[in-house]
This record gives sequence, structure tokens and C-alpha cells, in this order.
Amino acid sequence: MSSSSPIRIAVDAVGGDHAPAAVLEGVTAALAADPGLEVLLVGPADVVSAYASAHERVEAVVASEIIGMDEHPAAAIRAKKNSSIVVGCRLVKDGRAHGFFSAGSTGAMMAGATLVMGRIKGVSRPAIATVIPTVDLPVVLLDIGANADCKPEHLVQFAVMGAAYARTVLGVPVPRVALLNIGEEATKGSVLAQEAHALMAAQVPGFIGNVEGRDIPAGGADVIVTDGFTGNVALKLMEGMSKALLGQFKAAMLSSPVNKVAAAVLKPSLQSMRDRLDPDSHGAAPLLGVAGLALIGHGSSGPKAVASALRVGATAVRGGLVERIAEALES
Amino acid sequence: MSSSSPIRIAVDAVGGDHAPAAVLEGVTAALAADPGLEVLLVGPADVVSAYASAHERVEAVVASEIIGMDEHPAAAIRAKKNSSIVVGCRLVKDGRAHGFFSAGSTGAMMAGATLVMGRIKGVSRPAIATVIPTVDLPVVLLDIGANADCKPEHLVQFAVMGAAYARTVLGVPVPRVALLNIGEEATKGSVLAQEAHALMAAQVPGFIGNVEGRDIPAGGADVIVTDGFTGNVALKLMEGMSKALLGQFKAAMLSSPVNKVAAAVLKPSLQSMRDRLDPDSHGAAPLLGVAGLALIGHGSSGPKAVASALRVGATAVRGGLVERIAEALES
Repeated sequence: MSSSSPIRIAVDAVGGDHAPAAVLEGVTAALAADPGLEVLLVGPADVVSAYASAHERVEAVVASEIIGMDEHPAAAIRAKKNSSIVVGCRLVKDGRAHGFFSAGSTGAMMAGATLVMGRIKGVSRPAIATVIPTVDLPVVLLDIGANADCKPEHLVQFAVMGAAYARTVLGVPVPRVALLNIGEEATKGSVLAQEAHALMAAQVPGFIGNVEGRDIPAGGADVIVTDGFTGNVALKLMEGMSKALLGQFKAAMLSSPVNKVAAAVLKPSLQSMRDRLDPDSHGAAPLLGVAGLALIGHGSSGPKAVASALRVGATAVRGGLVERIAEALES
Repeated sequence: MSSSSPIRIAVDAVGGDHAPAAVLEGVTAALAADPGLEVLLVGPADVVSAYASAHERVEAVVASEIIGMDEHPAAAIRAKKNSSIVVGCRLVKDGRAHGFFSAGSTGAMMAGATLVMGRIKGVSRPAIATVIPTVDLPVVLLDIGANADCKPEHLVQFAVMGAAYARTVLGVPVPRVALLNIGEEATKGSVLAQEAHALMAAQVPGFIGNVEGRDIPAGGADVIVTDGFTGNVALKLMEGMSKALLGQFKAAMLSSPVNKVAAAVLKPSLQSMRDRLDPDSHGAAPLLGVAGLALIGHGSSGPKAVASALRVGATAVRGGLVERIAEALES
């Protein structure tokens, strides 16, 4: 696609804990930052029509149903054809939008994207990727939860898809791809990890071998591949560790009047550190392997995360992410 | 055993990156802190005899061989009958020591303890446990690497052994036992996690259900059970996150002269926070399920970690850890 064509991203107006207010605020920021972006806002008529009539480059697409966080994902996708998630995925399938973002039910987004958009030819299992800020360059980690049980050949596909994402969205020409394992040697780890290592060494361009848990926050790889069970535990553990350590620091800094003064001096430097490590700077986790761009937002997404997700989504579309994944899997 | 009997712990004088100096310094501190502790120091004659003749409550046990970090564990245990690790495990087997600590090769300690001490009756797979400082109470996490591939019934045994450790060493009367998983519901996760959940709900006293990665640093459980692959990734990830975040904080604090002054004011509070979260405060990871106390130190153990390991070891012996595990597995 020509780089001057507008990028059309569908957005679920009613997905997420802070919808629709946070979503609409994020859309406004994304539109202001990118003159080449158009938004198809999906949701109940009263929400989407009022916003679309007040903003340029926004089209309202009415979807009267909402899939709740506690509904069975696949059953809800089949039953609620007029839900914001099904309608958004359908816009991509029909070629009216290049991608779809929702901060609603992760399970429903996975089921909706897979069932409605379909899979890229040759993909066995779509995987959810996330971009983790590290002390060095950001790293793509996948799968973070779509597939709790994996076979070695699934991890090989995750590696190829993750590398395509790093090339397209992070601009890394030749991504270094690593396998998450419990030792450096090829013979270490579970049967899954050992077999995946052997396959990846033979089939994955840029494969640099195993990394361990401690290497994730240190950087050193551009793509880290694991099964969706380990990846999900790792991602949530990083969230928990950040929260716990920052909480402890905060408590130490407020523990006396003189500490509070010192903390005020340090505040700008610490804030810039927090900004650098902010997971909201990437905004959404793509479901890689489906035949369209599906961006899954955190349920707690605020305006900044929504705007980041749309910026990342536009970059992915302009870079031809889906086509690149298809090409990489063919070769 | 009567609480006034001396506790005899064998110590590998030549295990670890900083041996023998750090080991000997740690032993000295442990002996000073606990008048009821006796040490059997295992290693080359020149190292152990000189130390034993200069210190009370220390017996020298000569072991002329050393197992290197890069040797195949089980093969080395069979070939080097006079290595410090085999001799130390033998002291426990023969009833001359209540436990054995080594900061040498983890694999060799696992193989040595399992082959020489033997397993507690009914134990399928010994597991390595570690105690993690959290913002709340410390939590026992196991397995952290002895078993990369597990069956559901192994996780049930880990739960029972971990609970016995929490009762004996952490003094928790009725430990809350949780399964590490990727969602709260019983039906979430891998096949292993789902089947383990069902078995644990039926068989493990104090089972409170699933916890997720973010719950590990938050506390809320006394024992968290997982397979050795996930546990090893999680433990090393926590080490990596602590290092990365503390490094970023340090850089922020030294980024300007005025920041340095503020940092100096905060230093005592931050140091007390670091002490609270210091993994060295527990010192060693026990291999649970073998018929004797086997304490595995981190390769980087310093004097503080060695002293902590001996203190924890003495507590475990006084509390009858091995007997409690055997009783718990029988019922």
C-alpha cells in the first residue's frame, strides 16, 4: 500500500474498564498525532454517532451488543453477531478497516479474530505478542497466553511471526531471536524446550539460542519465544515486580519529612525512568497469525495506551505486517 | 530430637564462586550466632584442617576431589567418590551430620543427595524450594528447577513438601498453598495445571486455588507450587527485574549533583528496603524429598548467604523437617 493512503483502524468504543471515555480520549489524541489515520468507531449508536459527528476522520459503525468479561469467548462470538468485537473483526475481514483494536475481553478478541478474520495460510496457532521495555532495546515476547500447551513446531512459528513483528514495528532489520529456557545449553530444559531449540536452530533466521528468565529485562534479544503458559506467568510477574518494587521505593521516600524533600528533588529523574519503562508506551498486544491486524488492549487501558495502540497499529499496517508474516512463513 | 542436642551441619568448603574464603567467613558467623551449632567442614586437607584447628565446634573431614561446575552431575557423583559433595552427602546418610550445605554445582548436589541420601519413602521427585521475600510475608516457591517436566501428581507432592517446609522453617501453622497458573478459575491453564488443580483441591490441606505471576511478589500465599521449568524462569526473572530496576534507580539518583545529595538523604531508608528484599537472608534452597537435609547455595553465595543457610538449616533440623515431610506424605 502507498504510504500516503489513509490507514483505517476500527476501534471498540465499549471495550475496557474505562470505556468509552478513555477510548474516545485516546482516539482523539491518535487522530491529532497522525493526519493519515482514520478511525471506524464501533459501538452503541449513542456513543459512536455523537463522537463521529463531532470529529473529522471518524466514521460511526453501530454495534448494539457488548461481550462481557465473564462470557465464554467462543460461545459469545457465535451468539452475538452484532457485538462490537464481532463487528470490528468483520470490518477487517471485509477490507473496510486495516486493523481492529479492543480493550475488551482478551478471550473474545482471540476467538473473534481467529473465527472472523481467519488465520494466515500455514499458521497452526495464532499467538499474542507483547513489547517489553528493557534497560536496553525493547523486546518482543510471545506467546503470552493464547496457547497454554504448545508443540515445538508452534514455537518455531511464533519465532518467525515475532521476528516479522520486530522488523515491521520496531524497525529491527535482522532480529535476534531467542528461546526462553532454564539454561544456556541446547540440551537444557523441558522436552518441549529441547525439541524447539533443535527446530529453531535449523529453521529460524537470526536464532541466537536460549535465554533465561533473568535475561528478559536485560535485553540482548529482540524476540523471545516461549509457550503461552510460561509467557503469561512471566509477563504478569514483571507487572507484579514493578508494582511491588515501585511501591516499596515510594514508601521509603515518604517515610520521613526529610525523605519527602529528597524525593521531591528526585521526582523528575524518577518520572523519566518510569516513562521509559512504561508498558503503556506500546499500548496493545497484537494477535499474530490471523489474517488481519488484531490489537488486544489491556482491560485497564487509559487514553495513553489507546493512543499508543493506534500509533503502533498504523505503523504495522504501513509496514505490511500481515503480508510479511505470510511471506516469512512461506519461506 | 531434644532441642538442647547440638545440630551438626556438614559444609562444602570448596563449593561456590567465592570459596573457600566466603564459606569460612560464613561458617564463623553462623557458629558465633548459634552456640548449639557444630560444623563438619568438608574439603581438601590444607583448607579444612587449618580452619578446624583454629575454631571450636568444627571438625575437619578431608575430601580430596572437587566436582567442577561444567561436569555432568550424575557421572561426576559416580566417578568422584572422594569429592566434597559425595563425602558431605555420605556424612548425612551415615548419621554423622543432620544436613549438608554446598554452594557448588546445583546439578551435582541434586544427584548426590538423591543417590547417596536416597529419597523419602513415597517421594517420586525431589524438588528444589526457595523462599522469596515479598511485600507481605515470605513465600515458599517450588519447584525451581529440579524437574523441567512434571506430572500433576508430582505437583501434589511438591505442595505437601512445601507446606511442611513453611510450617517447620517459616513457622506458619497452617500454610496457604497455591498453584501458579494463568488465571484464577480451576479450568484455566495448561493440561498440567488443570489436572494438578483438581488433584490439589482434593488432596492438599490449605489449598487456596490458583495464583498468577503478579501474585508472587505480592504475597497472599505461603507456598506456591509449579513445575521446575516455570519456577526456574520465574525465579531468574525476579532476580533480573530486581537488578534492572535497582540499576535504573541508581542511575537516576546519580544523574546530577543535586540528585546525589537527595540520594544520600534517602540512603538509609533504601538500604533497609534492600535488606528486607535481600534473597541472601534465606541463604540456600533446600532439595525437598531426599532422606536428609540438602541445602543448595547460589554459586555466588557470600558470607551472609552461607551464615543464613546454616541458620535456616539448624531451624529445619530442630523442627524435624525430614520427618514432617515423611509424615505429611503418608497421610
